Amino acid sequence: MGTLRVGMVGLGVVGGGVAKILQESAAELARRSGRRLELTRVAVRDPAKSRDIALPAGIVTDDLAKVVEGDACDVVIELMGGTTTARDVVLRALANGKSVVTANKALLATHGAELFAAARQAGQTIAFEAAVAGGVPIIANLSQCLTANRIESLTAILNGTCNFILSKMHAEGVPYSDVIAEAQRLGYAEADPAMDVDGTDTVQKLTILAQLAFGAVADWATVPRGGIDTLDLADVRFAQQRGYTIKLLGVAQSTPTGVQLRVGPTLVKNERQLAQVGGAFNAVRVTADAVGELLYYGPGAGRMPTASAVVADLVDTAVGRARLTFDTLGLWDASAPGPAIASPADAIGRYYLRVIGDDQPGVLAQIAGCLAAQGISIASFLQHEPLTDGKLVPLIITTHDTTEGAAARACDKIAALESVQGKPVRLRIAD
Amino acid sequence: MGTLRVGMVGLGVVGGGVAKILQESAAELARRSGRRLELTRVAVRDPAKSRDIALPAGIVTDDLAKVVEGDACDVVIELMGGTTTARDVVLRALANGKSVVTANKALLATHGAELFAAARQAGQTIAFEAAVAGGVPIIANLSQCLTANRIESLTAILNGTCNFILSKMHAEGVPYSDVIAEAQRLGYAEADPAMDVDGTDTVQKLTILAQLAFGAVADWATVPRGGIDTLDLADVRFAQQRGYTIKLLGVAQSTPTGVQLRVGPTLVKNERQLAQVGGAFNAVRVTADAVGELLYYGPGAGRMPTASAVVADLVDTAVGRARLTFDTLGLWDASAPGPAIASPADAIGRYYLRVIGDDQPGVLAQIAGCLAAQGISIASFLQHEPLTDGKLVPLIITTHDTTEGAAARACDKIAALESVQGKPVRLRIAD
Ligand SMILES: NC(=O)c1ccc[n+]([C@@H]2O[C@H](COP(=O)([O-])OP(=O)(O)OC[C@H]3O[C@@H](n4cnc5c(N)ncnc54)[C@H](OP(=O)(O)O)[C@@H]3O)[C@@H](O)[C@H]2O)c1
Ligand SMILES: NC(=O)c1ccc[n+]([C@@H]2O[C@H](COP(=O)([O-])OP(=O)(O)OC[C@H]3O[C@@H](n4cnc5c(N)ncnc54)[C@H](OP(=O)(O)O)[C@@H]3O)[C@@H](O)[C@H]2O)c1
Repeated sequence: MGTLRVGMVGLGVVGGGVAKILQESAAELARRSGRRLELTRVAVRDPAKSRDIALPAGIVTDDLAKVVEGDACDVVIELMGGTTTARDVVLRALANGKSVVTANKALLATHGAELFAAARQAGQTIAFEAAVAGGVPIIANLSQCLTANRIESLTAILNGTCNFILSKMHAEGVPYSDVIAEAQRLGYAEADPAMDVDGTDTVQKLTILAQLAFGAVADWATVPRGGIDTLDLADVRFAQQRGYTIKLLGVAQSTPTGVQLRVGPTLVKNERQLAQVGGAFNAVRVTADAVGELLYYGPGAGRMPTASAVVADLVDTAVGRARLTFDTLGLWDASAPGPAIASPADAIGRYYLRVIGDDQPGVLAQIAGCLAAQGISIASFLQHEPLTDGKLVPLIITTHDTTEGAAARACDKIAALESVQGKPVRLRIAD
Repeated sequence: MGTLRVGMVGLGVVGGGVAKILQESAAELARRSGRRLELTRVAVRDPAKSRDIALPAGIVTDDLAKVVEGDACDVVIELMGGTTTARDVVLRALANGKSVVTANKALLATHGAELFAAARQAGQTIAFEAAVAGGVPIIANLSQCLTANRIESLTAILNGTCNFILSKMHAEGVPYSDVIAEAQRLGYAEADPAMDVDGTDTVQKLTILAQLAFGAVADWATVPRGGIDTLDLADVRFAQQRGYTIKLLGVAQSTPTGVQLRVGPTLVKNERQLAQVGGAFNAVRVTADAVGELLYYGPGAGRMPTASAVVADLVDTAVGRARLTFDTLGLWDASAPGPAIASPADAIGRYYLRVIGDDQPGVLAQIAGCLAAQGISIASFLQHEPLTDGKLVPLIITTHDTTEGAAARACDKIAALESVQGKPVRLRIAD
């Protein structure tokens, strides 16, 4: 096999890292691939921009066609982001007989079925290790290493920005609004972090994992989603007092009625490994019938960790492993529809509730009545000292297992009580 | 591609699990492999033995030749253990044009170079995911997922029996001798656990990982090795008082003079993830130039987790990925000698020392003098209350970075002091 000519779209955070690895580890990569990997074209928005990576003259272009069409590249790495031009880039590359490597979770979560159909049609492959959990090779592990297993559940911390912010809120007792500002200053959060902090990014990654683990096709926009942007420091404190850490978890679970998916701030017992994942790190806990439990932990983003995943895909493509995996996995294959997505209302689990009630007799009985009416039994109950104004008390309740539907109905009833202020805060407790 | 006819040698703990997965997940495995996997021959010592797994008549035999020769099997899974007959089984299978899957770390650590040369010669492959860390897919991760990286270090808990025993010693304050008996009763330790508890098993697995991560060829018998069988409960207590947990760690590190390898009970700061790996679990921490840090955690042994790894290899072999990986990795390839094994005396690190001295003036000065003479500086020093007889005091010292050679020389000098009883206990502190 001759040199593999590599085209790339995007030379930003991740693209720059990929170019660096291709330059600095050329000899090792050639050995591990059985052939040379040569960067022949890189498309960017602005070729005149000064960059910290020096490429041979004539490689960088603002003409996408020079990468995705013609004869200069055998494979195309898409690292521009977004779902419009990026979709076009991938489709054109495939149509022109080029396999694709991408780190773009938004693209796959939104257009996965279309892109994979196009790849099959064109006889090409798509590899996407970097799209979920950055440097943590969870895609390869689900596709290859756990193939003897029926996956039962995935429980994952998939957004480093959120985990960084949550870790700070816990350690320093500072509210979300203060930490997000600091995270932006330190570069742990984007200038516009909306998709991170509202849970969108986690949901998109989770639906990709659900496709791999269960063959389930989920519309990410319909997955129940909570973010950390609405998380109150008070709940962090109350959770801590009970021995819990709040994490933004994405959960995918095989159940008798289909695959349950959800994302939201979740109370995790401090002793659990996921509770101990600090800073901007990611982690994925997998339970499966044969292996039992596995945990993967590592950097979920950043230039070099993400580039490490992209280049692993590139080597897999160069060696020919990507083709074998692509052909046998049949991802997003309309002719082999996967399991149903279960109704979120049927999801079973425990809840943490915080209710602000008037400091007067009978409130507790009314709240307990609302829960009992939905068949929800209380695991623990704590009435705190009145808030500063002396008239309102926070009531912290944890429940035994119930359904999401019952918990939501009970909270609606509680919110309607005259002696209760506002809507209860309701968070899941991890199993 | 037609059916892949699978022969197996061994139907014990792991072999029984493999047979179970092949039976119960036949349809899924066929889909994921693109072909049927059919168990056609299983060799055992005693075909008459009653087993908890029912196989079709005529499959089970005590004639190894029916598996490794002739035409009944396309691949051979070696799950009998040992290094003599097992070596013969693998060589004969290869010579007869059959690729091999094995879980046998002792075999690979002892005869890896010979077996891989034979496989190359025969145009066949050897896959061995289950040989290290059981259900944790560390082999595939080092071979494929981290291929864009230069590995810097591996720090690993690779023996579940030892970790189970250590966890009990820490949690319950009971000495090694009591726990090992219980572990055997519960089935966490073999009837003859010598190779586990003296560190041999960990060393063998570590040398296999060192081949994958660095291309280093190490004779496992020459790697510095400590076990838990000589670990004193007193040191567990003193370590705990200082915020450390003692773990049996295997460490492989790239250094300027070659690859450093060692196995031994090691003090790990409680906050570190490796310190929190409990029970019979394994974990591998990898540091590498691009990805930074990754941690893998899961069951290191047991019927189904180990079978999960074996069947993953089998699917890789069926799909053809194993061939591509085998050809490009060039493991144990005499024509591409890897880095040198560094001299253990040059290993740099911190130490925990426990010295039993006479309770009289001047002892401390003498000990400190022995350390200073080797250029070792003291990080912390604690003289405990005299032992029950009132005449001897335990002195606990932690050092700053020094070399193994200097630490060993200082301890020899300390042991020779008249005011000191016996040899100092010396344990590494993890970086
Ligand atoms: N950053 C991470 O840690 C991380 C982690 C995992 C996955 N990802 C994913 O990786 C992808 C890239 O992220 P990034 O952080 O590297 O983004 P980035 O730093 O913003 O870089 C984007 C690159 O794409 C180029 N580009 C944008 N629009 C283009 C167009 N129309 N034509 C040609 N080039 C265009 C830009 O060119 P100019 O340089 O000229 O502006 C830039 O080089 C995204 O899908 C992201 O979700 C990122
Ligand atoms: N057990 C674990 O958790 C684990 C984890 C990782 C790796 N491994 C490795 O996996 C391998 C197997 O371990 P295991 O625990 O499954 O061992 P095991 O339970 O002792 O089973 C050994 C099997 O090999 C058969 N056998 C032994 N000598 C034979 C011979 N000369 N000819 C034909 N068959 C023979 C035995 O036959 P009979 O049944 O008739 O006696 C038995 O079925 C070992 O290399 C071990 O290191 C084990």
